[in-house]
Amino acid sequence: MIVELKQAASGADIERVTALLNGEFRTIKALEFDGRRFLGVSGAREDLDPGAIASHPAVLATSQNDATTYFTRRSFKDLRTEIAIGERRLGGDDMLIIAGPCTVEGPDELWRTAEAVKRLGVHAFRAGAFKPRTSPYNFQGLGREGLAMLGTIGKEFSLPIVSEILDPRDVGLAEDHIDVIQVGTRNMTNQALLKAIGGSKLPTIIKRGSSSKLDELVRAAEFVMYGGNPNVALCERGIQTFENATRSTLDVSAVPVLRRTTHLPIVIDPSHAAGERAYVEPLALAAAVVGADALLIECHVDPGMMIKPGDGPQALRPDDLEALLEKIEAVLRSVGRRLAPRL
Amino acid sequence: MIVELKQAASGADIERVTALLNGEFRTIKALEFDGRRFLGVSGAREDLDPGAIASHPAVLATSQNDATTYFTRRSFKDLRTEIAIGERRLGGDDMLIIAGPCTVEGPDELWRTAEAVKRLGVHAFRAGAFKPRTSPYNFQGLGREGLAMLGTIGKEFSLPIVSEILDPRDVGLAEDHIDVIQVGTRNMTNQALLKAIGGSKLPTIIKRGSSSKLDELVRAAEFVMYGGNPNVALCERGIQTFENATRSTLDVSAVPVLRRTTHLPIVIDPSHAAGERAYVEPLALAAAVVGADALLIECHVDPGMMIKPGDGPQALRPDDLEALLEKIEAVLRSVGRRLAPRL
Amino acid sequence: MIVELKQAASGADIERVTALLNGEFRTIKALEFDGRRFLGVSGAREDLDPGAIASHPAVLATSQNDATTYFTRRSFKDLRTEIAIGERRLGGDDMLIIAGPCTVEGPDELWRTAEAVKRLGVHAFRAGAFKPRTSPYNFQGLGREGLAMLGTIGKEFSLPIVSEILDPRDVGLAEDHIDVIQVGTRNMTNQALLKAIGGSKLPTIIKRGSSSKLDELVRAAEFVMYGGNPNVALCERGIQTFENATRSTLDVSAVPVLRRTTHLPIVIDPSHAAGERAYVEPLALAAAVVGADALLIECHVDPGMMIKPGDGPQALRPDDLEALLEKIEAVLRSVGRRLAPRL
Amino acid sequence: MIVELKQAASGADIERVTALLNGEFRTIKALEFDGRRFLGVSGAREDLDPGAIASHPAVLATSQNDATTYFTRRSFKDLRTEIAIGERRLGGDDMLIIAGPCTVEGPDELWRTAEAVKRLGVHAFRAGAFKPRTSPYNFQGLGREGLAMLGTIGKEFSLPIVSEILDPRDVGLAEDHIDVIQVGTRNMTNQALLKAIGGSKLPTIIKRGSSSKLDELVRAAEFVMYGGNPNVALCERGIQTFENATRSTLDVSAVPVLRRTTHLPIVIDPSHAAGERAYVEPLALAAAVVGADALLIECHVDPGMMIKPGDGPQALRPDDLEALLEKIEAVLRSVGRRLAPRL
Repeated sequence: MIVELKQAASGADIERVTALLNGEFRTIKALEFDGRRFLGVSGAREDLDPGAIASHPAVLATSQNDATTYFTRRSFKDLRTEIAIGERRLGGDDMLIIAGPCTVEGPDELWRTAEAVKRLGVHAFRAGAFKPRTSPYNFQGLGREGLAMLGTIGKEFSLPIVSEILDPRDVGLAEDHIDVIQVGTRNMTNQALLKAIGGSKLPTIIKRGSSSKLDELVRAAEFVMYGGNPNVALCERGIQTFENATRSTLDVSAVPVLRRTTHLPIVIDPSHAAGERAYVEPLALAAAVVGADALLIECHVDPGMMIKPGDGPQALRPDDLEALLEKIEAVLRSVGRRLAPRL
Repeated sequence: MIVELKQAASGADIERVTALLNGEFRTIKALEFDGRRFLGVSGAREDLDPGAIASHPAVLATSQNDATTYFTRRSFKDLRTEIAIGERRLGGDDMLIIAGPCTVEGPDELWRTAEAVKRLGVHAFRAGAFKPRTSPYNFQGLGREGLAMLGTIGKEFSLPIVSEILDPRDVGLAEDHIDVIQVGTRNMTNQALLKAIGGSKLPTIIKRGSSSKLDELVRAAEFVMYGGNPNVALCERGIQTFENATRSTLDVSAVPVLRRTTHLPIVIDPSHAAGERAYVEPLALAAAVVGADALLIECHVDPGMMIKPGDGPQALRPDDLEALLEKIEAVLRSVGRRLAPRL
Repeated sequence: MIVELKQAASGADIERVTALLNGEFRTIKALEFDGRRFLGVSGAREDLDPGAIASHPAVLATSQNDATTYFTRRSFKDLRTEIAIGERRLGGDDMLIIAGPCTVEGPDELWRTAEAVKRLGVHAFRAGAFKPRTSPYNFQGLGREGLAMLGTIGKEFSLPIVSEILDPRDVGLAEDHIDVIQVGTRNMTNQALLKAIGGSKLPTIIKRGSSSKLDELVRAAEFVMYGGNPNVALCERGIQTFENATRSTLDVSAVPVLRRTTHLPIVIDPSHAAGERAYVEPLALAAAVVGADALLIECHVDPGMMIKPGDGPQALRPDDLEALLEKIEAVLRSVGRRLAPRL
Repeated sequence: MIVELKQAASGADIERVTALLNGEFRTIKALEFDGRRFLGVSGAREDLDPGAIASHPAVLATSQNDATTYFTRRSFKDLRTEIAIGERRLGGDDMLIIAGPCTVEGPDELWRTAEAVKRLGVHAFRAGAFKPRTSPYNFQGLGREGLAMLGTIGKEFSLPIVSEILDPRDVGLAEDHIDVIQVGTRNMTNQALLKAIGGSKLPTIIKRGSSSKLDELVRAAEFVMYGGNPNVALCERGIQTFENATRSTLDVSAVPVLRRTTHLPIVIDPSHAAGERAYVEPLALAAAVVGADALLIECHVDPGMMIKPGDGPQALRPDDLEALLEKIEAVLRSVGRRLAPRL
């Protein structure tokens, strides 16, 4: 249960409301978003008296006692959330492009890819330093060293950096080096990680678990917001279905559904859904036309050189990406939108 | 196995090749498409001698012995298939719109809906006379009477009619009254029906089974083509996944995948995937941008009046459809296409 | 809506109740099961007045107006349905074994396999004459000739015959030659076929569609019962999931779920779920222990000789089947059941 | 790639082999299991020379260069792995029962439940102190305090304790208080956690992700073994399918499949698959008959008192469990097995 306090609520008021909320197998927590103050209740709630709580003079509003989401819901605020990513805003009118290689490998290709995507007007650079992999024998990423390398690149090219972390202990490291945390599809239900990120203010993109309902994705974001971090975006990256012609099945209806149910920005990753270069373009255009706030696109100066097994087959070369961006721009224009201006 | 005969192959040649193909648990059949002649082999094939067959002087080409599709494949012909639907062509450069109510109910609404969609420039009218339903207690459609009613409407408004049949015995009836047979999602694996339609030349749109791989959809079309009917189109209408925010999950990658693997026209039904009016627009735009050849859209002059339980919640009113067509036109223009001219 | 009439209801009463039920877009039908009389309503039901109908003096009971099943439900009768299969009863205390080859191929192997399974005490013989196949180039079965061959075998060995039909036109043929119709997994939603079978009294086993909910399977049976045929059994044969170590995933919970929701006999086909000989035994034992009424097991005297591609890899040899039956007998004993006595 | 060294390999040999293995984007690691010594290679492997490595005199065997599993595979060792759980062995001839409540709530019910299951001869006690939950507003468990409480209970009743951890930082805590770590279904792909557990020797049961292939489950175990911890068991607990009559669909074929592909013990959790008390018995019996090494069963002295929302509806009362254990014993006997003797 969430209780929103009135602006005038005093410390003594809050103590009294907290007393009403307290009880066995329950924890109470204070939160503040945009100057609005809340008390959150986690745990056993059956013996709460919602009427008494709602009618307390310091209480502005309360959630349903059994609500599983609150802060992430469309009804929570008037406007959609906008998250500053460098000088651009994710969730604003304009679409952002986040591009880069799957993995931080050598500094040379990384540098050249960053240079190329910067030249194309991409708004953030993504690459993985911590890689959750199919097998322990695959390349696990350069880890801390890779994250630091990304930090350097970001400064050099004035490109905000998006990168994944896997371990709750690495949130501080992310704060030191990068601009946006990515929670990968394998970790959407890793609640220790979500809670740790909730303790930061770093913008975070949560990828949908490959077999997770949209409601579950939103609840993953609720864990982060309930931790105190309002800068959360949701990413559809293809779901696991029986179809195997594409690596995953991109669920484009995720965008209109999430726009209706939440106020959070919505990112689409056409590359991982496609699993193959040739399908990235149609999926990216579909994402643009249904209203995605940003695209996350794999790009590498030389996909053939990527460490194998890896995502080389789905990575666009900078030339491909340039052509795609032109098409995206045209499609966006046809629905009254545009790409955010280049940095 | 499929054997393509040379143009010069004589009747005696064909007899000799047929003799090479004959054998136990095997049937041989002659087919002709676009002046090209084929012998098809169905059944046990292990004792065939592909080398001997391929090297026969009357033989132009043979399929792999274990191929499960041949006539539907991209490699079968140089050009994509175009199917005449009234005066327009499904599979040509321009996109077609097929619209109408889920079900033939009273003649009055049907007439008014046909009038409305005709006025909007829709290229074919769809409505169901034979309805496969969730339960025997739901309205099962007006059957033969409904099909005849559709035939009358088609003539009155010069609108080609698309309608579903469920029973192999009704193919002749379809030939009498309508222009395009629809094989519904529940019947994609109904091979008795597919084979019966293969004996006709009536254009046929096969809807993907809600849990069928694209390969299985193509094989359903192969059953029809192997029956002798080349006028087959494929329709993606949403697949069954774990997600339940939409009725089905529209697999937009079906379009680029099928364009690569087959030469058949590809139709998208955004209405059944959405299950809800508000999601039809984004899905229709996504379908337009990825290259669908036609859209199949539910439209009714008064969705609230439709027999319940039914597809009322997903049906667009003519005004909604008009607004949608304008947006589709804009999106198509942005990718260098357009809607086919109005009739 | 279903209306059960009182025993005393006269013809005039029935006319009056029918008048209450009549209306636009609605059909009324009279049914009789076990001496109980019913009127069924199919179609638009919103303008019905359930109160007026229920309170009519000739009416014993009515279903919920929006119920999608009635005759198949557990609440419809006191006892579970038992269907006579030859001299044994499917759905009684004892478990039945139905075995035989996937496909009717040559008369010789068929004869020898029937002889072998008869010797092992199997209670019915199954083989396919009409084969729905992956591709039109696979062996489509011997059709009418195969069904007749099965009829002969059945008489020769006093073995009830179970075989699939695909076409509503073949119900009469089935009545002439075989004892139990099988509706295959690809045709569970083929309502033209289900309705045609509803017009017969021949026992029918409906296989669950490979992506169908149990509720949908029960509704398929409702179509048959609403047609007037009460002799329906349900068959779980593995469902399509993301797992591919087995061909399908056998849903053993189907048995307790269906025992709770319906009164119909429940058959398990471990062979098609397994897709591989080695997994048939554990799945068959699991089926026995959860309470299946019968098992449908592929058996062939010489699986290596079966026409390819086919189900050879999953077919048990008679020796394997004999060993399996002993284990099944032991497992059944441990839960207080047994195999039905041999014929 | 994995390289097994000969017994006679000297330190100098190992250095030489390591030199052959070294390279860019690659890490080398030494492992030892049962006195056998290995070098493991993780990362880019394309420039390795398998021939040179395999022919080095100190090398006994090498894996395929692209193998994704090695230590978990059936071929790795002659015998199936047995893991000591208290005085019993998981993976031995006899089946173990692990039972207890979903969640550590108050000490009183926990104590009484432990007492009850101990009396019934259960071999280990399970309860959750760290709870991954649907929503942040549900009870998240007592955490460290709960784990300590479990440790006390374990000592008091001489019951090995099985409990879940969610955070890599809690492995040491688990070592202090409990006997077996559970990796929950939501964390099967949490590789930071798996790697941390790999650094311990504590027995670990990994639950299959609810949409994970068995191969993925085995690879999760490979992460733990590659970390150096050989005491891993696999747990099937129901997979997410389209069916919703049960909470999940128990995949009983997981047992024969995993017995063929791995040497690791296999646990079945019928309670979470069922989601409902009435279905636990048939699923448990099915698990017993297909060869599971242990069952994980929810049991609570008073399910109605459990904190809501929770797993109360699926928890057995001690009396139910007692009756179930008798049936399991009978079914095991019928296939030549038994429950492990009571502690």
